[in-house]
Formats: sequence, C-alpha cells, structure tokens
Amino acid sequence: MKALVYHGAGHKAWEDVEQPVIRDDTDAIVRVDATTICGTDLHILKGDVPAVTDGRILGHEAVGTVESIGTGVKRVKVGDKVLVSCVTACGSCRFCREGRFGQCLGGGGWILGNTIDGTQAEYVRVPFADNSTYPAPAGVADEELLMLADILPTGYEIGVLNGRIQPGDVVAVVGSGPIGLAAIIGAQLYSPSHIVAVDQADARLEAAKTFGADVVVNNSREDALAAVMALTDGLGADVAIEAVGVPATFELATQLIRPGGHVANIGVHGQPATLHLEDLWSRDVTITTGLVDTSSTPTLIKLVRSHQLDAARFVTHHFTLDQMDEAYDVFARAADTGALKVVITRLEP
Amino acid sequence: MKALVYHGAGHKAWEDVEQPVIRDDTDAIVRVDATTICGTDLHILKGDVPAVTDGRILGHEAVGTVESIGTGVKRVKVGDKVLVSCVTACGSCRFCREGRFGQCLGGGGWILGNTIDGTQAEYVRVPFADNSTYPAPAGVADEELLMLADILPTGYEIGVLNGRIQPGDVVAVVGSGPIGLAAIIGAQLYSPSHIVAVDQADARLEAAKTFGADVVVNNSREDALAAVMALTDGLGADVAIEAVGVPATFELATQLIRPGGHVANIGVHGQPATLHLEDLWSRDVTITTGLVDTSSTPTLIKLVRSHQLDAARFVTHHFTLDQMDEAYDVFARAADTGALKVVITRLEP
Amino acid sequence: MKALVYHGAGHKAWEDVEQPVIRDDTDAIVRVDATTICGTDLHILKGDVPAVTDGRILGHEAVGTVESIGTGVKRVKVGDKVLVSCVTACGSCRFCREGRFGQCLGGGGWILGNTIDGTQAEYVRVPFADNSTYPAPAGVADEELLMLADILPTGYEIGVLNGRIQPGDVVAVVGSGPIGLAAIIGAQLYSPSHIVAVDQADARLEAAKTFGADVVVNNSREDALAAVMALTDGLGADVAIEAVGVPATFELATQLIRPGGHVANIGVHGQPATLHLEDLWSRDVTITTGLVDTSSTPTLIKLVRSHQLDAARFVTHHFTLDQMDEAYDVFARAADTGALKVVITRLEP
Amino acid sequence: MKALVYHGAGHKAWEDVEQPVIRDDTDAIVRVDATTICGTDLHILKGDVPAVTDGRILGHEAVGTVESIGTGVKRVKVGDKVLVSCVTACGSCRFCREGRFGQCLGGGGWILGNTIDGTQAEYVRVPFADNSTYPAPAGVADEELLMLADILPTGYEIGVLNGRIQPGDVVAVVGSGPIGLAAIIGAQLYSPSHIVAVDQADARLEAAKTFGADVVVNNSREDALAAVMALTDGLGADVAIEAVGVPATFELATQLIRPGGHVANIGVHGQPATLHLEDLWSRDVTITTGLVDTSSTPTLIKLVRSHQLDAARFVTHHFTLDQMDEAYDVFARAADTGALKVVITRLEP
Repeated sequence: MKALVYHGAGHKAWEDVEQPVIRDDTDAIVRVDATTICGTDLHILKGDVPAVTDGRILGHEAVGTVESIGTGVKRVKVGDKVLVSCVTACGSCRFCREGRFGQCLGGGGWILGNTIDGTQAEYVRVPFADNSTYPAPAGVADEELLMLADILPTGYEIGVLNGRIQPGDVVAVVGSGPIGLAAIIGAQLYSPSHIVAVDQADARLEAAKTFGADVVVNNSREDALAAVMALTDGLGADVAIEAVGVPATFELATQLIRPGGHVANIGVHGQPATLHLEDLWSRDVTITTGLVDTSSTPTLIKLVRSHQLDAARFVTHHFTLDQMDEAYDVFARAADTGALKVVITRLEP
Repeated sequence: MKALVYHGAGHKAWEDVEQPVIRDDTDAIVRVDATTICGTDLHILKGDVPAVTDGRILGHEAVGTVESIGTGVKRVKVGDKVLVSCVTACGSCRFCREGRFGQCLGGGGWILGNTIDGTQAEYVRVPFADNSTYPAPAGVADEELLMLADILPTGYEIGVLNGRIQPGDVVAVVGSGPIGLAAIIGAQLYSPSHIVAVDQADARLEAAKTFGADVVVNNSREDALAAVMALTDGLGADVAIEAVGVPATFELATQLIRPGGHVANIGVHGQPATLHLEDLWSRDVTITTGLVDTSSTPTLIKLVRSHQLDAARFVTHHFTLDQMDEAYDVFARAADTGALKVVITRLEP
Repeated sequence: MKALVYHGAGHKAWEDVEQPVIRDDTDAIVRVDATTICGTDLHILKGDVPAVTDGRILGHEAVGTVESIGTGVKRVKVGDKVLVSCVTACGSCRFCREGRFGQCLGGGGWILGNTIDGTQAEYVRVPFADNSTYPAPAGVADEELLMLADILPTGYEIGVLNGRIQPGDVVAVVGSGPIGLAAIIGAQLYSPSHIVAVDQADARLEAAKTFGADVVVNNSREDALAAVMALTDGLGADVAIEAVGVPATFELATQLIRPGGHVANIGVHGQPATLHLEDLWSRDVTITTGLVDTSSTPTLIKLVRSHQLDAARFVTHHFTLDQMDEAYDVFARAADTGALKVVITRLEP
Repeated sequence: MKALVYHGAGHKAWEDVEQPVIRDDTDAIVRVDATTICGTDLHILKGDVPAVTDGRILGHEAVGTVESIGTGVKRVKVGDKVLVSCVTACGSCRFCREGRFGQCLGGGGWILGNTIDGTQAEYVRVPFADNSTYPAPAGVADEELLMLADILPTGYEIGVLNGRIQPGDVVAVVGSGPIGLAAIIGAQLYSPSHIVAVDQADARLEAAKTFGADVVVNNSREDALAAVMALTDGLGADVAIEAVGVPATFELATQLIRPGGHVANIGVHGQPATLHLEDLWSRDVTITTGLVDTSSTPTLIKLVRSHQLDAARFVTHHFTLDQMDEAYDVFARAADTGALKVVITRLEP
C-alpha cells in the first residue's frame, strides 16, 4: 500500500510500504476512508519530536472501515465504519480507569503516527480497537466525524473543560489557528457572555468571528489587556485559553485573567515560559495543561448529531490520498492558503 | 496606647499612639488579648511591601475582647471574646458573595497591618466586624484560637484545599517553615498515604516529622525527585505544595508532580519563576495560587474543638506586649531560636 | 399608598395602607416600578402557606427606584434603579457566607410577601438592601429585569445547576408551566442534545417548543418513559427536572432517569411522594431539592445583556398597579388566558 | 470441586460441582484462598433476588491465586495472588469509561454469585480479569485484602464519597451493622468533627464506638433527631448515611439532615420509602443512591498499606471452606454471635 513516511527532519515521502497486519488480539486493521493533517505533523517534520524515527508513517486522525480484527476485539466488527481517535486506550491501567486515556500506562496514549505507524496511509493498525475507535453514527458525514479525531476534543477538553467555562463568562482565546478556533466553537456550548479572540493575523481573526468570537483583538497593533479589562470592569477574563504554544502568548494569557480565573493551556510548547508569581501568587489563579483524552468523544458525537456543533466548518480543502504531498503543502502554507483542516479521502471506489 | 509602628524599611518602634475609634458603623474596637508575628511582617520590615507606609501599626492576627461597636454591627457584642481574622470582608461585593473574601472589592481583603493599622497594639479597629471576626468557642485557649487568624487557614485553603488532597494521596510539601508545617498538619485531615517534607534545614525537617510528615528529604544533600518517585512507582506526587516563595522551590514542586496532579503554591513570591511548559504541556497538571479567604475558619474552629487539629503545637514562645521587640527578635532569628509562632499577650490584668 | 393585602384564605384587596419606612439601618425603601405575580402567591391565597397572616402585603418580585436608604446602606443610592430579588440576604450568617442565601439564618431568605410586607404595592421596604438588590444594567428593560427576581434564577439554580446539565445531555422537564419553561430556557445555556418537555396540556407543550424543547410529550395520552428511552438507547435521561410539585410528576421524574443521572426537584410540594428505593437503590441516582438563592443573578444579568437569555419571552400580559385584581384574575386563569408572567407597572408619570 | 450452591429460597448445599474453565479469552480461573459472606447472600437465600437461580454458586468476594488465564488477559499472570472484586468491569462500555463499573453495560457489574457462579467455592471463573482483580500488595494479609472486595469500597464510595463528607462535618450513620461500620471507618478518612451512630441494638452501638463513632444513639429508646440537633446548633447533620435498607431508617436519615446537607443511601431496599417533599422541597438537600463501582479499590489498598485503614477490624470469625455451613450459620445469627465478617479460608496446604 501507499503511505506518508517520515524520513528524518525535513524529509517525507508518499511511498510503497507493507500493509499492516494484526499483531495483538485487540488490534483492528482499518481501511482509511478519510484522514487529515495536524499542526503536530508539521512539528514532527521539522524534527521537533524525537520519538518519531525514520520510517514512521505519520498521521493520528482517520475515519475508516474495519477490514479485520484480532480475536480479542469485542465491540468492533469487520465492515464497521469507525472514527479512529488520536488517543489509544488500554482500558485497564490506572489512568484509563480514571478516564485519563491520554496518559495511558498500558501501551496507549498518543502513539499513532508517533511511536507506531499512523493514519496517513491506505490502511492502519489500531491497537486496543474496542477503546480507541467509535462507531460512525448515522447522518454524520465522514469529514464531520474526522474533526472529532483530535481537534474538537482537544479544544473542548483542554481548553473549555479545563478552563471550566460557565454561562456568562468572558473568555479570552489567545491564538486563532485551528486549535484556537476549536476552543472558540467549543466554548459556545457553555454560553459565555463574550469570547475575545486575540491573534496577530487579521485573516485568522476574521475566521474567529465566523466561529463565534464577538470581540477580536489584533495584538500586533492593539492592546489585548485593555480590551479585556474594558469588558470586565477592570477585573480580567474569567477564562483565558492559550492556543499557540510560545512563551509570549502564555504570559499574555496569565495577564488577562481575573482573580479566581482559569488559564487553560492547549499550546504545544518547545521552551519554558516565565510565570510571574510576584503578581500571581495572591490572585487565586488556576493554570492547567493537558493532552487530550478523547473522553469527550461520545458527547461531541451527540452534539454533532443534534447540530449543536458544526464540525464541518473547519474543512477548507479536499484532496485524495494520492495528493498527499499537495495536501501537506497547502496545510503548511496556511497563512497564504487559508487552510484550517484539509480532508484527504481514499480514491474511489 | 502602645503599638508596634513601622517607620520605613528596617525601622519599627513600640511606641505611644492614639487609641483607635469607630469610624464606620460596621467597625468594632477590639482590645488585643493575644497577637502574633507573621513572616509577612518581616517582609514588610525589609521594605518589600510598598503598600505599607511610615506610621502604620503592623500585625494582622489577634484574639481579643470587643470594647465598642458601630451602630451597624449586628452579630458582635461588647464584651465578646473574638478571633480577629487576617482577612476582612465587606460581605456584599461580587467576591464576598462567592466566599472569596481575600479578593474583597468592597474595602476588605488583607488590610490589617497593611493599608490600615493592625493588631500588634493594645487595641485595634476592625472594619466589617460582623464578617471579619469569629466568636471564641468555649474550651479553646486564646493561643489555640490565635493560630486560626492566618497560618492554619492559609495552609488549609491555599495548600490542602487548592491541592485537592484526597485519601491515599502522596503529598509533597516543599518547605518546612511555619506555613509548610501548617500545610502538613492540614493535609492529614484528608488522610494521605504519605506526606513527604522537603527542606534544606534538618531542624525544620525534625519539626515536619513531629507535625506529621512520614518521609523527610534534606534537598541540600538528598534527591527529592528520586525520593518521591520511589514512593509512587515513578509517577510523581499526587499533590505538591510550595511553601517557601522562591523560584527554585516552585520549580521543584512542578517536577515532583504526577500526570494529573496538583501543584498548590502558598509561597509569597518576589520574583518570577520558570514554568517548564516544554515538559508540562502534556502532563495534565493543575497549578494554583491564592490568598487566604478564611472561609474555612468556622470549619477549623470545629476541628480544634473536636481535638482533630492541634493548633497549640505551633506555639514555641510566649511574650507580653511590652516585650514586643524581644518577640520580633526571637521570631526573626527562627533558625537559631527554633521559633514557629510566638504568642504575645496583654499585660495582666 | 395602595397595596395588595392578604386577608386570610380566599381574600385579598387592593387597598390603602401605610407607606413603609426605614426600620433597620440596612433597609431601603423602593418605589415599585414593575412587579409581577408568582404561582406561590396563588398558593398563599388558597391558605396553603400558614406563615402568611392577615394583613400581609403580597409579592416578592420587583423592579423599582430607591427612595430612601438606612444609614448602613453602602452600595445602593437614592435614585438607583434596582432589581428587588425574591431572596433577602443578611450577608454574614453561615449560609450567606457560602452563597446559600435562600437559607439565610440572619433574618433573610424568602421573607418579602411572606413574613414581611412585599412588592405588590406602590412602595416596599427591602431589608439588607446591599445584598438583596441589584443595580439595573443599561439597555435592559424593566420587564426583562423583573424576570430575574425569581423565575429565571429558580429555573436555573434549582433545575439546571442542581441537575448538573452538561453539553450533549438529554434533559427531561416534567411540567411546562412558567417554572418548567424557565428550566427549559436555562437548560439551553449548557447545550443539551435534546430537551424533552412533558405536560398534560397541549397549549403548554406548544409554549415549551417555542422556549426550546425539541421533543414534547403529552402524558395524558402518550408514554413519556417510552419517549425518553427511545432517545437514549434505553438508558434514560441524563437529567430530569420536576417542575410541577405533585407526587405523580416527581415519581415520573425518578422513572425517566438513567443510571448515574440527576433528578432536580423545583416543584413546591404540599404532600409526600413515594420514592421507589427498591428500584433506585442500585441506580446511582442523585436527587436534589432547593429554594432559590439568587446567587446566579449577576450571571443571569450578564446573559440578558449579551442577548443569550431572552427574558422578555415570559411576558404575556401588561397591567398597571390599579389593575391588580384584573392581573390576578388573568394569571390565575392561565389555562384559559395563556398567561405566563404578567407585568404590572406603576401609573405614569 | 466443592462449592456452596443455591437451590431456591431457603436451600443451599456445600456440594460437588464441575471445576470452572476459561470461556472467554479475558477470563481467569482463580483458586480461592479466602472468601466471605455478605448480607446480600442472606437476601438471596431468602429468595429476595430473583436473578439468582437454582444451581448458582454464591459469593462475590475473594482473595485467591490465579490458576489459568485466557489468551486476552494481559495484566494478570498465573501464580499471582489477587483480590477478586465484587464488581466486574468490561473496561470499554460507556459506564466503564466513566469509572462507573457497577453499571457496566458490557457484561460486567455485580455478576459473581448472582448471574454467574461465584466465589464460595474452591475455584472461581473471573471474567474481564484485567479489570476485575487487583494484585495483592506486599505486607497485606489475605483477610485484610478480602475486606476490600465489597464492604469497604461500598461504605466508602456509596456512603462517604456520595455523602461528600468534609473535615469538620457532623456525620450521622443510621444503622451499625457491618456496612454502617464500614461507613464509619471510611468517614474518618475525611476527619469529621463528630460521627453519630444510630441503631436499635446496644451491641452494634458498642461496635460503632470501637470503629470510631463518638456519639451513639439507641433509637429504640432515645431521640436521634434531638441528639443530632444538640450537636449542630439545631441545624442538622451535614451528612446522613442510611445503612439499613428499610423505609423507617431512610426517612430518619432525611429528617436528620441540615439545609444543604447530603443523604447517602447505602441500604439495599425491598420496598418504597416515603419522601417528605412537603418538608424537603425548600431545604436544598441532596439524596444519592448507588451500587459500588470499586473504583476506589486502589486508593483503599494504599490506605491499608499505610495503616490508615484498619481492615482487619471487621473480622470476627474464621472458618475453612469445609465449614461453610457453620460459617453461614454464625453469620446469619449475627445478633447472637456478634459476627461482623467471617473469613473462610481454603484447607491447607
């Protein structure tokens, strides 16, 4: 089969590889009907994720059809259309028992396209298939479902739930790339009174408005702190979500927050930030970090089905698997192409 | 009357001042029967707290007897023996309505010995007396009750409750000065399986043992991370409490924590710390800061009465008010004197 | 002045009474600009609330203008336009410190139109004015604000918050009178996937649809349990809200609930219900009751201002104070008149 | 092998049966080293649990040694000493993903000695062995560990955690049989200020004292409500735990509770109770029911290891498997024999 293979920093190829086979009795082999590219894949290609080694098939998001299953698979059947989640769960370890699947100690967690071969391929082996896939519900298109593989649960769990957004809150989202937009769309499920999007690119702020931000601040030329204080009688935001992954945006998030507020970090950071404890020690702030657990996936599927979450809104470009290189190119040049999420589907039939 | 007056960095005097009078109808004038000195008072004397200006009477902890009350005081009566809390609460602002009295927007918060005259005096004016004092319960000695003015609620609310200690947890407390000991004694109310005390002074670690730590680590010569990992199958502490207030101890606390754990900062910081988001972003950690609300005071009073909290254990030295200078000297030289809390009582009768 | 006075079961009169005066220093006298009638007022008139005695002015909801204040009132000024909440809070007792104002031990709680004279009058004395009124925000009409005096916080706190509605939930609301509609409108702030309204009157179910229920069941002829099970794969509703106050509807709510679900009782009950513990003991259910605290009032005001809560939707009829008897008549005959909330305003100018 | 077999209401026999074999790949066969009898077993013998049919081996608690495992078992190995929990968990269904194992939809829940053969036998087949057993920790005796199979997690999860006991609380426990004692011992992990035990048998109240109750009330001759009110300034208990399972004790628990308090029902009920909503509707009470999930088992194991939970205290009598009938007799006549938990061990060697 063909797959997108990583060959060290800066190198990848859409090339022939062996088709995957069942290794453990809880595995499923899934034919990939649709996959996508994550910002993390770009980080890997830069060489920023040392766990990913030469020869690894990338990708951790897919919707597909079950081709075969191991003898221990009980809930998934051959022929099922399923969502392949970015997080794999053994279902038995201490963290899986707590619903903290992203921290799985039993061989799961984020492994697809990282420590084992991933979903940017014609077929993928999915370990612990009973706990790591979700049946596709009737009436939900593949590309909508695909948005539940990573970006929507990440924005919802690590941004919205960790941030403990409540009705009436003023929520500041720092960064309006895809993950910031996922936080914005997820935040609305809790009816905040205002969502303030902060970014340095006007195009992304325009996107933020269409996703639901009612106040936008271009902090390359405007004062985000002043904007938030003006909305909150000088107290600060109830919740500030960091959705970039660099020190400056994290530090901004900690400035925007009111006494008693929550700073929810979603960004993937490569270096330390400064925590201004000389200001924050007495301000009753809560700061959270997190890797998605996808524990919210069943909830989000219900919300897509009931049309309360418009998952398709993220999809800006469509490709087929043989256009993988072009898909990467368009996604990597998002500033020019306006790409949010690209959907890459298998060739018909 | 006599009072301990601040006269700029490095200068204080036990001198004659005007006796306080009722200014607002919710004030009470309280005769100080017992007061104490807080580490924060030493910070003020160094000039580290600019809000405190020349002429201010210091002190924010007292047990006393009500001498007079304003016309709006309803719950406190002349002659009542009361605990004067370090935090004053207007009772009506947004934060007081939420029980977040430390962030009071209506003129309260930590004001005694800070922005208004304090308790290291023969008499003190207590604003919002109905919300800022607690009736002394029968059977509790003044010096026990005095420990509930600041140190015990601070350790309990900002360390134990913010850290969300649960039965069976492994709790690491970084710093075994008085506030670290308050966290240790408070932590036991939730039955952790282990309390690991970390400090660089053997004498303080000895105190930590008597207060309830079952593992002690002198991190001037021992490896605190290794000690915690050995107790937790390599996962890290469920809760790490920072009780010093310098960058190195905060950073240590963030290293000791397990995925999904809580870091509760109690320390008063004068400079920023480094937050290693490159390690922490994916580890599901929660970091909290806070100023005590004293919302737990009624609970802690119940626990002192039922002998589940041994408040008197903190008291190492006794003085009378006219020995204020000596009391400060003993408390400031805690490393030599072994002082934890000094109790300073009025002259008889 | 004129007021609506209760004269024993079945008797009331719009008659001349003494104008109220300041009694305690924390009182305010408020000129009533708009008031309304609650289902509880009808219960009182039937003689069901023995605490209400002959001569009492009824009513516990108002928007008005402050005429005078006691010497201890700090946050409210003469001339302020304010919301008079149905719950009065001393601000200092154990329950007020916890935000549980409805259980105030210091002389507050639900007292207006109950144990002291109420708001269906030209003027009303409001005790603890600082804690029992809210400044009218710019851009919110009196009649919108009036809906925040009781019905909206009751539906939100006792139905939605006690029921712990989460995004994606299936919520069953038993009873579609005004309080059930308040629960329906409040539930949407948490984005449930379905709201099932259950009632025996088609007209009320039509109202439920316009308020946001997407499934309606007339349980005089349809099977509510079957309808809920069909929506939930046979598990039951995540949250069931009782909004009637009779045994049959409470018992239905406990049947509709899934394992692990929440039953939130809002209804005012006059007799006991049967709790089927032989079925429920093993089903992990949580059942809550409650009197509104109005702790959510500031949040709800923000949501009205940001147009996320359409408070005006409840208002079906308008009267002036001199039409009080007609207003009562229309409200009491809601089945015929379609009345939800009637707004009664003072005579111009 | 020999096993205790149910033969319809009133009939049981310790008789020869087929030794169990692996049926599903996630099964383990466990040699029973120690088992015990639960009050529920007595209910079954009376014919009260229709799901249990003629021929069923009873018992749902054991400590044993793994004899063989299915091909899909990953965490348990032959020769391991394990705790066999009363609750079996598939690990993949909606409720197992939430940690609500008692409600497992995938074939687990309480099945041992109920819908499949149980532990009162020389060997037992344990489905979903990875999720339904726990490795025996070093230094914990079999009979201590055996107390974690059912009684201790039931008292802790359904009584203490559902009741949300907090430090300083006054906790009333209605019923001082084994499950009430488990609630009393578990409650102390949260440092309540008082534990009030209520029962009609002086012998059980004596046991309650040794387990940690500081106030005991024999409500055959004393007034439990008066006793609780005297301790709580007339407000009522913060938490009331029902540990009997009859209407009168449940109704008493709902009377003892303060406004805002929690009633946690542990009792297994065979008939409905009366819920006095005419009193309770406005009192902000929370009532919970539940079947144990054994999600707390790892925590409780840590607490037994750290000597904070004295599990052995429940063990009053010892038998060997061939004395099963005698063990049942002693346990069934607990009022005479003083039996709390009987431990039944296999014959040596």
